[in-house]
Amino acid sequence: MADAYQLQNGGSGDKKPLLELYVKASGIDSRRIGACLFCQEFWMELYALYEIGVARVEVKTVNVNSEAFKKNFLGAQPPIMIEEDKQYTDNRDIEGRIFHLAKEYNVPLFEKDPTVEKRIESLYRNFKLFVRAKTDFDKGKKTFKVPVDIDALPPAIKIHYNRIVEQLAGIDQLLADRQTRYLLGPSMTEYDCELMPRLHHIRIIGQRLLGFDIPHNLTHLWNYVLTAYRTAAFIESCPADQDILHHYKEQLNLFTNQRETLQSPTKTHTLPEAVLDEIKRRGLDRK
Amino acid sequence: MADAYQLQNGGSGDKKPLLELYVKASGIDSRRIGACLFCQEFWMELYALYEIGVARVEVKTVNVNSEAFKKNFLGAQPPIMIEEDKQYTDNRDIEGRIFHLAKEYNVPLFEKDPTVEKRIESLYRNFKLFVRAKTDFDKGKKTFKVPVDIDALPPAIKIHYNRIVEQLAGIDQLLADRQTRYLLGPSMTEYDCELMPRLHHIRIIGQRLLGFDIPHNLTHLWNYVLTAYRTAAFIESCPADQDILHHYKEQLNLFTNQRETLQSPTKTHTLPEAVLDEIKRRGLDRK
Repeated sequence: MADAYQLQNGGSGDKKPLLELYVKASGIDSRRIGACLFCQEFWMELYALYEIGVARVEVKTVNVNSEAFKKNFLGAQPPIMIEEDKQYTDNRDIEGRIFHLAKEYNVPLFEKDPTVEKRIESLYRNFKLFVRAKTDFDKGKKTFKVPVDIDALPPAIKIHYNRIVEQLAGIDQLLADRQTRYLLGPSMTEYDCELMPRLHHIRIIGQRLLGFDIPHNLTHLWNYVLTAYRTAAFIESCPADQDILHHYKEQLNLFTNQRETLQSPTKTHTLPEAVLDEIKRRGLDRK
Repeated sequence: MADAYQLQNGGSGDKKPLLELYVKASGIDSRRIGACLFCQEFWMELYALYEIGVARVEVKTVNVNSEAFKKNFLGAQPPIMIEEDKQYTDNRDIEGRIFHLAKEYNVPLFEKDPTVEKRIESLYRNFKLFVRAKTDFDKGKKTFKVPVDIDALPPAIKIHYNRIVEQLAGIDQLLADRQTRYLLGPSMTEYDCELMPRLHHIRIIGQRLLGFDIPHNLTHLWNYVLTAYRTAAFIESCPADQDILHHYKEQLNLFTNQRETLQSPTKTHTLPEAVLDEIKRRGLDRK
């Protein structure tokens, strides 16, 4: 009977691989998702496999400083993926396994596009340079709790700002040219799993730490951010604003106030009103 | 004049890329190399490029807990590679860049061999299971400072030991069949950069923490370890015994005694005498 039942399910009903992903926990509360970009990237990819029924996926947050974690993984860092008795502790191996599964089931998650690759590759690195330069500058000011206005920045800092804006505009242009929902077409690929979390970090940290926002005239880019906010794989895997902010403050050795640690976690998954109006006016969100 | 001089050097004398690799520092002394397997793997690959004059390479140890490091890399972990203004913080990207350089200069560093891949893939994961089970068991004993003899282990622990020995024997057999100096042939490939550091950790942690040694009858495997000890890329990038031991003790939350932290760092790069004699008797080291 059991065999017959399995056959009715195409014979593979019970053979779906179970992939467990261990992601970094928030420094505020280890039950909450932390701001680890590689963790979110793989989570989104796994979610895509889960959505179409290729795999079962379980995600666990881990406190990397706990003794239990250190002992279990002996120095490996999240993301860590486990499948049966196999442990994948290297991004190359995690991606290799997901790639293999996607290929096996014809999921177009890893299509290649050198133009897209080039356009998005250095955005986050340059953002980090901007974050560092800007927060250093702000720290030197007496009124350091309020970020200095972008226009009032000295040229040495402004150069980082300009570079970010230029790159964001480049991605906006790419999206305008392609007229696609995701970077490569109507469905999400690894490039989106890479870019969406990074754009969201840029937005949250920009707003809450730098006095910076993605320029409101980049309508196609904002529409892409809106797509992220309407993509289950992104929403599910997204850390709360407070947890993203806490991560950067920790790394930058900035004072964390109680507002962030005690607040109920919230997720900014809405767009500035004027931007949203413009998107709707142009009908971009109906692609 | 300057141009003429450069031409004499093939025109590329000043164009060699400079690759900076940031590796994890030892927990004992941040000027010393720590026991980070991915760091050593990439270091060995970069060394191979450096040796044949393809790239300039600089390696720096970083204390991941220092504020300067956190601020500079905002949450990224070593290995981190920097080339001009590009920062590679993802193993996939580091490998991608090295792969590209190797391909450009016809360095056979990334030849593929599924048999070798399969034979070596789960060795280190199983070793970690063994380390955990064995040290847990030893901790429960009154005489826990002296590791319990392997033969006296209960079946639940012994099973991990048996699996490791079986896998080591499998690699020994592979090397016996192939009769090559490195896994794929006369020159080092990424498989060696992966396996050599792991074998060395198994040896050092086996001896110093587990009362375990690579079985002395696995002559071909020991000869391969000897090859590692005669490979500049391995020796240069290898942490001291004390730093390897300290890393595992830290992760396992075991007491670190002053012997390790105050001792002058030493590197075990010699073989047990009887094993070396057998290798020489069979002439294996002259391949």
